[in-house]
Amino acid sequence: MSAAFKIKRIAPSIEVVVYEAGLIPSYGACGLPYFISGVIADWQSLIARTPEEIRSQGIDLRLGHRVVKIYPKERRILVRREATGECFLDSYDEFLAATGARAARPKVEGLDSRGIYTLGTIPDAIAIREAALDPAKRNVVIVGGGFIGAELVESFSTLGKNVVLIEKAARFLPQFEGEISAILAEEAAAAGVVIKPGESLAHLVAADGTLVGVSTDRAEYPADIAVLCLGVKPQTAYFEASGIDTLANGALRVDARMHSSLPHIWAAGDCASVRHFQLDSDAYLPLGTNANKQGRLAGEHIAREALGTEGPREGGKRFAGVLGSAVIKLLGLEAARTGLGLEEAKAAGLGAASVLISAPDHAVYYPDSSPVTFLLIYSPTDHRILGAQAVGRRGAALRIDVIAAAIQGGLCTEEFGLLDLCYAPPFASVWDVLHVAANAVK
Amino acid sequence: MSAAFKIKRIAPSIEVVVYEAGLIPSYGACGLPYFISGVIADWQSLIARTPEEIRSQGIDLRLGHRVVKIYPKERRILVRREATGECFLDSYDEFLAATGARAARPKVEGLDSRGIYTLGTIPDAIAIREAALDPAKRNVVIVGGGFIGAELVESFSTLGKNVVLIEKAARFLPQFEGEISAILAEEAAAAGVVIKPGESLAHLVAADGTLVGVSTDRAEYPADIAVLCLGVKPQTAYFEASGIDTLANGALRVDARMHSSLPHIWAAGDCASVRHFQLDSDAYLPLGTNANKQGRLAGEHIAREALGTEGPREGGKRFAGVLGSAVIKLLGLEAARTGLGLEEAKAAGLGAASVLISAPDHAVYYPDSSPVTFLLIYSPTDHRILGAQAVGRRGAALRIDVIAAAIQGGLCTEEFGLLDLCYAPPFASVWDVLHVAANAVK
Repeated sequence: MSAAFKIKRIAPSIEVVVYEAGLIPSYGACGLPYFISGVIADWQSLIARTPEEIRSQGIDLRLGHRVVKIYPKERRILVRREATGECFLDSYDEFLAATGARAARPKVEGLDSRGIYTLGTIPDAIAIREAALDPAKRNVVIVGGGFIGAELVESFSTLGKNVVLIEKAARFLPQFEGEISAILAEEAAAAGVVIKPGESLAHLVAADGTLVGVSTDRAEYPADIAVLCLGVKPQTAYFEASGIDTLANGALRVDARMHSSLPHIWAAGDCASVRHFQLDSDAYLPLGTNANKQGRLAGEHIAREALGTEGPREGGKRFAGVLGSAVIKLLGLEAARTGLGLEEAKAAGLGAASVLISAPDHAVYYPDSSPVTFLLIYSPTDHRILGAQAVGRRGAALRIDVIAAAIQGGLCTEEFGLLDLCYAPPFASVWDVLHVAANAVK
Repeated sequence: MSAAFKIKRIAPSIEVVVYEAGLIPSYGACGLPYFISGVIADWQSLIARTPEEIRSQGIDLRLGHRVVKIYPKERRILVRREATGECFLDSYDEFLAATGARAARPKVEGLDSRGIYTLGTIPDAIAIREAALDPAKRNVVIVGGGFIGAELVESFSTLGKNVVLIEKAARFLPQFEGEISAILAEEAAAAGVVIKPGESLAHLVAADGTLVGVSTDRAEYPADIAVLCLGVKPQTAYFEASGIDTLANGALRVDARMHSSLPHIWAAGDCASVRHFQLDSDAYLPLGTNANKQGRLAGEHIAREALGTEGPREGGKRFAGVLGSAVIKLLGLEAARTGLGLEEAKAAGLGAASVLISAPDHAVYYPDSSPVTFLLIYSPTDHRILGAQAVGRRGAALRIDVIAAAIQGGLCTEEFGLLDLCYAPPFASVWDVLHVAANAVK
């Protein structure tokens, strides 16, 4: 929808048809864990734009229509009406793949039992919330300890359930380095959540077609509800045999304008690759922020292409790329990261070192000061800032945004350690957490 | 003290003597308004380091000793014991001026009446707090609407006083552009504070030597307490006739190592100039952050000089300069600024334009979202970010720090509008306030 709106803003005369397989076209999926917990009372508040609002912009929105096949040479698509199963052909001048991703489903025994969920859409969330509201369903197992799994820890913990989370990696929230992950795991444990890193799903145990337990390579846990949070797969099967260039997982590879490897085909969001600014390589980071930026950029370039104003040397915004920024609220904590982790940097052949500090979010003599644990990752040769991760009760997330700007601007720890950050006792210490971290690099 | 500690850390063998005119050597002066309001119960919590802690580092701390004259050619100083008035000479290899600034006192009638205060030191704050605790003293007039004046608005408002603030500039908190200042003035007005911009102090009205009113060029206000917040003057009178280079206000001009224009004399803090990173000129910005950074740098370079390791092409941190970053809490609001204001940029001959936006601090569907008003200042030619100012109930201050990093890194609005900032509903919208501001630049 970002692309569609952008195109219509630039050139209202361009005909824009949107095929959407579901019935809800534009919503804040990142709010779903908070709808499950009840913090957000009504899923309708997650709707960003109603079908009427979309159509009022001159966009031809066709809900319940799934694109099932693309014929790039003929510039045609095969579309199926979901309600009737009936198929028809349509044609395009420019095609934008914005088909997103779906929750991965492992091939294990018991997968089709009642009580097993994935979380990707509003209907998914409604189903999970309904199950969770049944007081007889006490035991919840979350399979997968990434961002969505961790957000569901909070949701189910808030609802008073017995929560077990299993994660096959060696630590909870493996997107964070061990020192940060450990603090998050402690927070979950303090709320009574059982975190089991280093355990893999073996199978789902059912009785009479209803889930009763989750079995791992090490143990079995009673379960009335299991949510599988095992990552997502780009929905690009309709490109099969088209010869389009993809990442190993099927995400369409795009350039800085969001154009794919095939003429007149563009891609944005969770079905597309994204450029990593620091690694200067294509990555897969299916996040709402990336999707929104890519959609807007795709819209701009598609409109320029359609208008004949797009040229190889001409203007138009290019996406410099992402830094892998992300933030999560976990019970009383906020934790955020940007840039490269130590392992990522090493995997990319970059030298990387880190310092770990803890410093108060604001002056200790002003009420309610609390510590922020801050891990700064930098190049040992030139001290360029490569990444950062932080966790604390307050003031962790936005401080990571400061690091995002510093990475984009190429700052080194020496400059950053003397950067003129705002200071007053309710907001920072005279040497802010950010300074303390940068100045810990010797 | 930052310099003294730094020197001792680098080279414990260097003899460091600290002359301090007062009796409290090292404290967080920025906390004083909160001690006056009672939010900080005990002024002793503001003490950063006790004399014992300082001396335990091998620093020869001499309290109650004022340096009254310096003889740069002879490398000698004249020191007065404040208790006895007795003077003696001492000599130095390297001298650091860290004598700070004192509150400016206007030459007006009635200045010596009881009930008139300035705020610079712990004894000042104790005196103001004692006066404020007298329930008979209902009417407070604050003269000067800069940062300290505005913080005292909060202090006295919290204590339930009738507060009038007069400011000779055309607006309250003139460090902010009009749009931001107006929101802050409204917040004060909503708490019952009477803000009178465009009024100048005429004289102080006393009866029997006790303050009863404050008279301006326009009106007279009843006053039991008046606090004069009219800026500060660097305490550098002991350099008189030394030939040292100063700014017009008497601040000692220093280079990026904190060295003054005279051999073996260094300066740091509120008695020194500071380099403005963007203007590449010497400014006077007497703030705790600047002072701490300058002190630490001065200590490093003094130690290197004393050890003979300082050379013109050698390492050692240089101060790239400040951006004029500052933040204030005013009742329920936080307001911050960094970089150049529109007037500052124009005064420096730089083209500058601005956009003003308002956007929610986090996703509107997540509880307690509130708007941040954000003014972004940029170069109309290359869209380089020049400055920003923000005000809101939450999330304004740290977002300004992101802009500080962006200015230091030389980012333009196009890059910044697609910067990979952290997103999750409790912390930001998918297009953050910062993106919305940058993308409003066309």
